Amino acid sequence: MAEQRTKTTGRKVGIWLVGACGGVATTLILGLGAIRRKLAPSHGLITETALCDGLDLVALDRLVIGGHEIRSMTPLAAARELQQASQFVSDEVVKACRPLLESVRKNVKTGTALHCGAAVENLADRALLESRQELPAIVKQLRRDIDGFKKSNRLDHVVVVNVASTEPAYRPRAAHTQWSKLEPALERNGQSVLPASSLYAIAAVAGGHTYLNFTPSLGVDVPAIRELAAQTGALYMGCDGKTGETLMKSALAPMFAARNLKVLSWVGHNIFGNRDGLVLDDPLNKAAKVRSKDHLISSIVGYKPQTLVSIEYIESLQDWKTAWDFIHFAGFLNTKMSLQFVWSGADSVLAAPLVLDMVRLADHARCAGETGPMPQLACFFKSPMDVDEQNFFRQFDALRGYLADAIRTRHAKKPRTRKRVTR
Amino acid sequence: MAEQRTKTTGRKVGIWLVGACGGVATTLILGLGAIRRKLAPSHGLITETALCDGLDLVALDRLVIGGHEIRSMTPLAAARELQQASQFVSDEVVKACRPLLESVRKNVKTGTALHCGAAVENLADRALLESRQELPAIVKQLRRDIDGFKKSNRLDHVVVVNVASTEPAYRPRAAHTQWSKLEPALERNGQSVLPASSLYAIAAVAGGHTYLNFTPSLGVDVPAIRELAAQTGALYMGCDGKTGETLMKSALAPMFAARNLKVLSWVGHNIFGNRDGLVLDDPLNKAAKVRSKDHLISSIVGYKPQTLVSIEYIESLQDWKTAWDFIHFAGFLNTKMSLQFVWSGADSVLAAPLVLDMVRLADHARCAGETGPMPQLACFFKSPMDVDEQNFFRQFDALRGYLADAIRTRHAKKPRTRKRVTR
Amino acid sequence: MAEQRTKTTGRKVGIWLVGACGGVATTLILGLGAIRRKLAPSHGLITETALCDGLDLVALDRLVIGGHEIRSMTPLAAARELQQASQFVSDEVVKACRPLLESVRKNVKTGTALHCGAAVENLADRALLESRQELPAIVKQLRRDIDGFKKSNRLDHVVVVNVASTEPAYRPRAAHTQWSKLEPALERNGQSVLPASSLYAIAAVAGGHTYLNFTPSLGVDVPAIRELAAQTGALYMGCDGKTGETLMKSALAPMFAARNLKVLSWVGHNIFGNRDGLVLDDPLNKAAKVRSKDHLISSIVGYKPQTLVSIEYIESLQDWKTAWDFIHFAGFLNTKMSLQFVWSGADSVLAAPLVLDMVRLADHARCAGETGPMPQLACFFKSPMDVDEQNFFRQFDALRGYLADAIRTRHAKKPRTRKRVTR
Amino acid sequence: MAEQRTKTTGRKVGIWLVGACGGVATTLILGLGAIRRKLAPSHGLITETALCDGLDLVALDRLVIGGHEIRSMTPLAAARELQQASQFVSDEVVKACRPLLESVRKNVKTGTALHCGAAVENLADRALLESRQELPAIVKQLRRDIDGFKKSNRLDHVVVVNVASTEPAYRPRAAHTQWSKLEPALERNGQSVLPASSLYAIAAVAGGHTYLNFTPSLGVDVPAIRELAAQTGALYMGCDGKTGETLMKSALAPMFAARNLKVLSWVGHNIFGNRDGLVLDDPLNKAAKVRSKDHLISSIVGYKPQTLVSIEYIESLQDWKTAWDFIHFAGFLNTKMSLQFVWSGADSVLAAPLVLDMVRLADHARCAGETGPMPQLACFFKSPMDVDEQNFFRQFDALRGYLADAIRTRHAKKPRTRKRVTR
Repeated sequence: MAEQRTKTTGRKVGIWLVGACGGVATTLILGLGAIRRKLAPSHGLITETALCDGLDLVALDRLVIGGHEIRSMTPLAAARELQQASQFVSDEVVKACRPLLESVRKNVKTGTALHCGAAVENLADRALLESRQELPAIVKQLRRDIDGFKKSNRLDHVVVVNVASTEPAYRPRAAHTQWSKLEPALERNGQSVLPASSLYAIAAVAGGHTYLNFTPSLGVDVPAIRELAAQTGALYMGCDGKTGETLMKSALAPMFAARNLKVLSWVGHNIFGNRDGLVLDDPLNKAAKVRSKDHLISSIVGYKPQTLVSIEYIESLQDWKTAWDFIHFAGFLNTKMSLQFVWSGADSVLAAPLVLDMVRLADHARCAGETGPMPQLACFFKSPMDVDEQNFFRQFDALRGYLADAIRTRHAKKPRTRKRVTR
Repeated sequence: MAEQRTKTTGRKVGIWLVGACGGVATTLILGLGAIRRKLAPSHGLITETALCDGLDLVALDRLVIGGHEIRSMTPLAAARELQQASQFVSDEVVKACRPLLESVRKNVKTGTALHCGAAVENLADRALLESRQELPAIVKQLRRDIDGFKKSNRLDHVVVVNVASTEPAYRPRAAHTQWSKLEPALERNGQSVLPASSLYAIAAVAGGHTYLNFTPSLGVDVPAIRELAAQTGALYMGCDGKTGETLMKSALAPMFAARNLKVLSWVGHNIFGNRDGLVLDDPLNKAAKVRSKDHLISSIVGYKPQTLVSIEYIESLQDWKTAWDFIHFAGFLNTKMSLQFVWSGADSVLAAPLVLDMVRLADHARCAGETGPMPQLACFFKSPMDVDEQNFFRQFDALRGYLADAIRTRHAKKPRTRKRVTR
Repeated sequence: MAEQRTKTTGRKVGIWLVGACGGVATTLILGLGAIRRKLAPSHGLITETALCDGLDLVALDRLVIGGHEIRSMTPLAAARELQQASQFVSDEVVKACRPLLESVRKNVKTGTALHCGAAVENLADRALLESRQELPAIVKQLRRDIDGFKKSNRLDHVVVVNVASTEPAYRPRAAHTQWSKLEPALERNGQSVLPASSLYAIAAVAGGHTYLNFTPSLGVDVPAIRELAAQTGALYMGCDGKTGETLMKSALAPMFAARNLKVLSWVGHNIFGNRDGLVLDDPLNKAAKVRSKDHLISSIVGYKPQTLVSIEYIESLQDWKTAWDFIHFAGFLNTKMSLQFVWSGADSVLAAPLVLDMVRLADHARCAGETGPMPQLACFFKSPMDVDEQNFFRQFDALRGYLADAIRTRHAKKPRTRKRVTR
Repeated sequence: MAEQRTKTTGRKVGIWLVGACGGVATTLILGLGAIRRKLAPSHGLITETALCDGLDLVALDRLVIGGHEIRSMTPLAAARELQQASQFVSDEVVKACRPLLESVRKNVKTGTALHCGAAVENLADRALLESRQELPAIVKQLRRDIDGFKKSNRLDHVVVVNVASTEPAYRPRAAHTQWSKLEPALERNGQSVLPASSLYAIAAVAGGHTYLNFTPSLGVDVPAIRELAAQTGALYMGCDGKTGETLMKSALAPMFAARNLKVLSWVGHNIFGNRDGLVLDDPLNKAAKVRSKDHLISSIVGYKPQTLVSIEYIESLQDWKTAWDFIHFAGFLNTKMSLQFVWSGADSVLAAPLVLDMVRLADHARCAGETGPMPQLACFFKSPMDVDEQNFFRQFDALRGYLADAIRTRHAKKPRTRKRVTR
């Protein structure tokens, strides 16, 4: 296995953002630019902490950014819009990042909004999209875009990251079970076969690129697509980045469990006003999100308290996700007590560094010869694929163990075994 | 070591509560009675969860309660007072626990308020205390009370638990370094030598009993007294039970650390109105408490954010400790965000089951032949003795590991090694 | 007008509670009993403050209670249930109120759940109700019950108060415009003509009794029924008691208006777990409630901020209504700022004294010869009939002015003019 | 009286800010500039609402700004510092306001920090101040600065506003009772006679200018200085601007009073990190502030609940004053309930428009021939001079009444009587 390991130093890695001019993507570009120019510290990035000392991760200034977008919008315009709306981007940073934003612009291609629901389609630039309504053509074009990005920028590895808005939930179909069934179904222009996130996933894994799903959309999580990934040796992981209220849940529920305090009910109300919020205002898209936010508590405490999750679009809040959680619990003498918290965080600011961390860790995994799902990244997701553990600290300990192993392996030049996060 | 292990089944263990008619003690008695009579579930007790399955802990109905008190008050009167004041005790439970409360009454002796500060002394019944102002006589009487409790109730083991109010902080003196210096100093009636909590600790460990300090008072944490404990083989641990706001801190600070979110400031305001609150209203006693609540954050995150802790006496709240914590943190792009929480818990209700758990686990340690400090109990304390780790989940994992070892050992009859919680 | 005024001292007034064994009714009975026996202070009652000094209101011990109920339940059993569930009723109070509860029992009759929606019907005792499905018979029986209560208790005046759960919203029909159309429609057994609350209202005003609607249900607010009231000279008012979160809104929105701070959005999430909550869990019933809670902000500030109101049933909270409101506002330099509040109140405890106050003030109005709606009671309602003013303090000032007038009139024996609350 | 009234249209009014480069002053300048250039709406200003329609207030673009400062700092540098620190000022606004900021610079003179306490003195530029330590010289210079500002800018009226940091509380002395005693005491270079705020007040009223005290410092509230003001006919008012938490108190306490809900305790914790916060971190200065924030609740509810107010300096918050208030209250059946609120506002943003409003209203009062204290401005202050009423809404109604009178008078050309706010 030591032979499989490629040196990462000097590597050049591409980040292909699905939603290239969205809030998370724009924040990622600005933050990356600001760190490179020493205009901001590396807060939020764990790949810049002691945890990764001794690991030869791809350098921050060797990351190249591109992506798909469905609105006619440039990265620079998106940065200015974000600056206006959300008050966490300074004039100085936008100015300093202008060259970076313009270089990204060349790598932005028109994507697809197929089956993203009316809420997403309303945001899209119809003129941009309507020219290619034929499904086989769409998938081919997406592949060409990503492969072309890799080639023209001489990249060692491309990581495709879905940072688009949430799609409506998708019911599995017969064609989803095997690639040999799905491929011809797509060829037959089966419009209703798959949502956009899965088309991007196919484009990514078909080309052997890594695919990360930062949303609760379907993406790669279709047996047929995972089968295709196994054939190409692509890495993938998802789904739904764990940034705020759900992070809190996965940190606090273990505390109640550890003290044998019985959680009676856990109510979480989320309000925010960015473009994601607008999309989630559509009940179809919201249902998918709420499911992803709600399941962990039972999983951690081992019984089913009454839970309630709401996400509402409040325009004035822009990117500032504000969540009120009320946790009602019973202790000794069956006494009812409560914990409330209010989380007030800029959603994109919380999400962007997780994407950067995962891209670097995925590239590390690729150099180590790994393929398939990456359970070591469980702590970054609300619903980590193939991982049952929902306790944030156990997920984080699993990542820590994985990184410590990697550092040991690198120094000892001994083969290391792959750890899986399971209970 | 297997030989050292005594069977716990059938054992009879005494709990000697310093502050026998205080809120924690009374809640412990009522809760224990309610569980025995199936009037309340065992919420709050971890020794009643699957974690301890397979461990032969002393049975809840084999615990005998006694203690020292400085007010003229009976356990039954204390129960009624608590019922009036704090709304978590039902008429039904007080009625059902009446025989238990009356049986405890026989085991309550007059304690000492020496050097507890004016706030505690004001609560005390002066007539009860003034007859024995000679220090050597006080210590001897405390010993006689505890030893007598063990003998007359035919107990296998007595665990002395300090659940009295917080004393003012105590500066170490020369006599504190060695038992050979401290003993004659006490004999000389050195009034200013030690506060009450340490006199109780001496009485406990001199008799080979276990001593647990649920307060930030000095207690056993004096080199000379630890030396004495080493001679008698006594177990001990402290200090300051981790029940509410500090528990939250030790659960949330690791989350910020794990996400590399920089904590800028952490403000915690606590308000409550029970007798402890009245004592903490005295600046001398409060200083000791605030110190114990404030140190963990830096220890967990590895740098010093601005921190502020206040505890204020608000009479109308009675036992309902309400804490507002405001955590200001910086993430990606140096964006400032915030988390606030409000904890609303009945302090005695949170504390009492921790005392029961620790008594049972201390008895288990004694059967396993352990002596000295019990680092496995770190997760129960704000300032665990000899333990640097302040992360609640690592402390809890250490306890879990210890218990799993114990269960394995018991089944395998193989010797087990003692785990220590260290970073 | 002085001649019209009847002496209230010595009067005996009946309170007929629709929902006689519900939370508000039971709390009213227990609170009234506790005040009479000096077991509780008169907190929550404004008719016991200096505001009403000099007014000859009916004495608290001259109030007689009866009502309609749709469950097989006695007032005493309801009191015990409430004591178990909601922790604000002591054993002592239930015991002391036992004679009162038993005397009320004689005055409790079976009511109707017609068109209250499935959620209410599920709570009802079907056996009790099914015997009288004929609409004309139902209305006649309701009238007989109320008239009989007045007669058998030799009451000077009966005030019928709707404290039942919220009904689904009701669309107005042609028959509603005139009593001459509605009366025959009811006679034709027009099942879908009116919901239960309006049948009670008809029974009340037809008998010349006063009708107060403490819920957002339709009740008296039908032109045809108001016409009938005008014929009998009955007093009435509604609707929907202003107890907690909405009270806060009507007190805080004026502050933002007075400072010219622009309210951008006002989000209010309410959670509670009593029987009302269970009924509101039905979307039909909830819609009526949310509308009543949401309209005031625009009315007070004079423009339409984004508003959101949710009410959710969280069983563990029982009667403890907990509301989180997040108010986002812009000030100078268009700076966005926020105010959040958390209201934690026992809903029935907040509601019951308002009912008692209104009964006494309605009786005062009757003695003063008033008829029709009582705008002076606007401050008690979320949606006061015929009153545009939603600012709590102006509503309260209107009541204060009315009372001051009444006191002056009484002393001066001069006629007084009726004040109306208008902007 | 109509004769006394001067036309305000076309008037040119000076605002002399004591603390000319502080947060409130800088925000005032930027906000004024932004409104003039239509870069910001007039939120926060009540003189721009319908309330003042029909009143000939001085136009916003006829206000000229100058002031005293004790640090070597320019208004432009202060604006840039504020932009960095507090995130509510955009680059665009600073750029647009540059000419205004530079024009103010010419009007900024060196002030005095005499007896402002060590905390303020540490902020001051010693070199600037030390040249004139002789008290008579200081007072003369302050007068010359203000009189010169009026003359050189051809102003009709100058309003001196104290927006400096809070001074330590000052004990009244014998010399304070009469101007005939105070004047010679000052001449004798009586260093300890008065704090800086009162020297500014003397300089203002001696010249017949208006003096407004936006802080809890002593200022004009000395019998001898009020006597001097009576001689010159100067207007004045104070003290301590009511911007955030105290505004909330004066709006919410009336609600509890109106519902006869008994306030058991009211706890208010304030945290913020601007220069004022740094000064308040000194216990002497803090004591003066806390007193001003704490007194109103008793005054409004008519009894003394337990109250607690803290203000703490938390650097990372900068200008964002965050306050948590916990209000414990008892209702019917003596049930304890709670209301909590969290106020998160930029302190300077809340303060600056109140200053502008008061300057315009003071100028209006001057045109109307008023002299002495201005009770109509009570709603702007935590501790309004000569006004007992603390209920915000009654204070505001008094202002509304005053303005309505003024509008009527203006149109009717009839004399109007001066309204005073009293209970």
